[in-house]
Amino acid sequence: MSKQTKYVLDEEQIPKFWYNIQADLPVPLPPVLHPGTMQPVGPDDLSPLFPMSLIQQEVSTEREIEIPEPVRDVFRLWRPAPLYRAHGLEKALDTPAKIFYKYEGVSPAGSHKPNSAIPQAFYNKEAGVKRLTTETGAGQWGTSLAFAGSLYGLDVEIFQVRVSYDQKPYRRAVMETYGARCIASPSNETEYGRKVLAENPNHTGSLGIAISEAVEIAAQRDDTKYALGSVLNHVLLHQTIIGQEAMLQMEMADAYPDVVLSCTGGGSNFAGIAFPFMGQALRGGPKPRIVAVEPTACPSLTRGKYAYDFGDTGHMTPITKMHTLGSTFTPPGFHAGGLRYHGMAPLVSHVKELGLMEAVAYGQRECFEAGVLFARHEGIVPAPESNHAIKGAIEEALRCKREGKAETILFCLSGHGHFDMAAYTRYFEGDLQNEVYAEEAMAEAMAHLPEVPENV
Amino acid sequence: MSKQTKYVLDEEQIPKFWYNIQADLPVPLPPVLHPGTMQPVGPDDLSPLFPMSLIQQEVSTEREIEIPEPVRDVFRLWRPAPLYRAHGLEKALDTPAKIFYKYEGVSPAGSHKPNSAIPQAFYNKEAGVKRLTTETGAGQWGTSLAFAGSLYGLDVEIFQVRVSYDQKPYRRAVMETYGARCIASPSNETEYGRKVLAENPNHTGSLGIAISEAVEIAAQRDDTKYALGSVLNHVLLHQTIIGQEAMLQMEMADAYPDVVLSCTGGGSNFAGIAFPFMGQALRGGPKPRIVAVEPTACPSLTRGKYAYDFGDTGHMTPITKMHTLGSTFTPPGFHAGGLRYHGMAPLVSHVKELGLMEAVAYGQRECFEAGVLFARHEGIVPAPESNHAIKGAIEEALRCKREGKAETILFCLSGHGHFDMAAYTRYFEGDLQNEVYAEEAMAEAMAHLPEVPENV
Repeated sequence: MSKQTKYVLDEEQIPKFWYNIQADLPVPLPPVLHPGTMQPVGPDDLSPLFPMSLIQQEVSTEREIEIPEPVRDVFRLWRPAPLYRAHGLEKALDTPAKIFYKYEGVSPAGSHKPNSAIPQAFYNKEAGVKRLTTETGAGQWGTSLAFAGSLYGLDVEIFQVRVSYDQKPYRRAVMETYGARCIASPSNETEYGRKVLAENPNHTGSLGIAISEAVEIAAQRDDTKYALGSVLNHVLLHQTIIGQEAMLQMEMADAYPDVVLSCTGGGSNFAGIAFPFMGQALRGGPKPRIVAVEPTACPSLTRGKYAYDFGDTGHMTPITKMHTLGSTFTPPGFHAGGLRYHGMAPLVSHVKELGLMEAVAYGQRECFEAGVLFARHEGIVPAPESNHAIKGAIEEALRCKREGKAETILFCLSGHGHFDMAAYTRYFEGDLQNEVYAEEAMAEAMAHLPEVPENV
Repeated sequence: MSKQTKYVLDEEQIPKFWYNIQADLPVPLPPVLHPGTMQPVGPDDLSPLFPMSLIQQEVSTEREIEIPEPVRDVFRLWRPAPLYRAHGLEKALDTPAKIFYKYEGVSPAGSHKPNSAIPQAFYNKEAGVKRLTTETGAGQWGTSLAFAGSLYGLDVEIFQVRVSYDQKPYRRAVMETYGARCIASPSNETEYGRKVLAENPNHTGSLGIAISEAVEIAAQRDDTKYALGSVLNHVLLHQTIIGQEAMLQMEMADAYPDVVLSCTGGGSNFAGIAFPFMGQALRGGPKPRIVAVEPTACPSLTRGKYAYDFGDTGHMTPITKMHTLGSTFTPPGFHAGGLRYHGMAPLVSHVKELGLMEAVAYGQRECFEAGVLFARHEGIVPAPESNHAIKGAIEEALRCKREGKAETILFCLSGHGHFDMAAYTRYFEGDLQNEVYAEEAMAEAMAHLPEVPENV
């Protein structure tokens, strides 16, 4: 058994500012379009859904945005999060590489998601909002917003993808324990849900449909706003405390990464660990390789189009330019865990187009295999999503071995797998397919992207 | 939302010694008897089951027993564990009491159990043991020993109570992820298991039967030893790091407890937080009330006999004097979660008889209710076992409110509930009965305690 090395920060070292990569971009982000007019949206267009403080963060180009003191107080429940040297994994791989990982599973929700759920609940509470609506697929975001809502006394309504609602009652139990209300989506509570059910009463749901339902409710009620757990600029902004803490901890370890990796679904934990390093590089600092790892079953960055598309299936959200598989795309049902969103965060898509990062895709079976190896040598059972980051890091470490290079690898372990053991059971039973692409569904969905005027 | 206060120690403050209460007992512990001769056992009688280093800890009366440096290195994966002031819960209860809790759910296994699994695996590895056998009911101990085994390269075989094996496949998946082998008990792999199955092929199992099976295998094989997750003196010893850390953290908070509480099943997390405070009182220090909280469905301390009894159903283990409901007692099936053992740790039973502590019992529904209140105000979803400690602490806080006393309450939150959400689902569905005692089963089992010579 190898010696574990944990790098721990003082509570005073919880970052006081979020890092906004929009300040350092060589080319600004393409504008967000209104779904009706197809013209750039202004802050007022977004105000039915979000409080003005979050809209300002969404469009800000200030480099540092202050984290409110009461938000930092809540973060102290579990932050600063530890960073580990993966001595056990290095030994198992017999690699000359040094592997480090930042562990976000120490939050009460078991993942990085509360890093944005807490400030979103805080700003909504400050704006006098009474209720938040949201969607959840695998359940990590729903759990986190339910947790944040309970601490701030906000009602939380969660449209949970029907298949997850039925198959993961324990995930729902967590949200209900925090006092949230879960509604299976598609539901009869929204016009869009009723329309979907009229076409197919047995529809198992999708993230895109659940978003449409949550947005519809928020847009209708004055005391209600909408909260999204990834994709948007302000969500990615909130997650940058991951990378900022990791920078301090890498300094403690007297190391700097040659490669930074994380898994990508909507892109928030990836941006969280990567953007602070990317920003330092853009400002003339050292330039690590930045690698996003996604599932082959939902490969927006590696196989999607970079184009304007809707964020939801009901086409109620603004239109953003991103890597997309098409807003009607649903990954195949055999795919366990999260990372099922059809699009990618516009900011991540943008820096990918600018050549500031790379992306790879792996099959779920090989990712579970990596996660099991990690658990046996590092002691932590990872979330299925995080297994993708581990798989990516292992491949880099094996490359280092082949090339005889002692590179330094840093990845984000975004959550623990304690809620997701049913997926591990399926893996052990040989029930998880690996490299199956949903070729037809992807082609069909990508053939129906919205048409956008040429001048934007 | 109230300000959270977390008290964090440096890694150098992980205790260097375990605290052994046997050094401070006013009356020594009654001897352990051999199941064949009914005479006190010597170290050699225990050597088929345990390595000599653990047997020495079992009988030691030294006050401080050094924690090996490599064990402290592994503890650094998650220790020191945080201590919190429960501002949110205090406010919800509107109590003048100050409530603190020590949180052990930060371990990779999600509970306090690795505090003993790691040293047990370490000492067995040092003694050249290749394989450990054990039993598990709710799954917390099996998970922890599987985790420890994976880090030390030991094979781990876990006899899992059949009903839990069938109903909690995700718990099994955690153990298998760590590389352990789970066997539904009663099984065909042992003589005792086959005997039980011959009488009842559909037997759903019990902790007492699973212990018999694990002990039988360990006694037969030279390269195999047995590991127990609670009850024994050395297990309680290992858990005292909980209370020792909590003492330092209470000092940081400039407070000292008037009441110390924890849940009790076999007694290890309770002893872990309580014994260091009890020892300080025995040596002339301040004397907090010490309160054990157990379920009404398995009330060994409040309803059991203080008598010599077997630790297992197959009557292979040594006989110890303890509070027992009888070695054939199985708590009713409606009881969710752990705390299902028929007996109580001999050391806890002994100090209870000496008047050094109190015990109370609560029904499971009221404990879940307490756990949900805690989750909504403190942000952590507790293990069903830990809900008992919370219920006890809430009752003390409400007493303080009635009496207008600003007492300081400290309890141990022994684990998180992420693996146990099925029990929460049952609670929300109104499916958990509250105050049902298994009167007949208790009377029947207690009528068949072993007869012990009068001179011991």
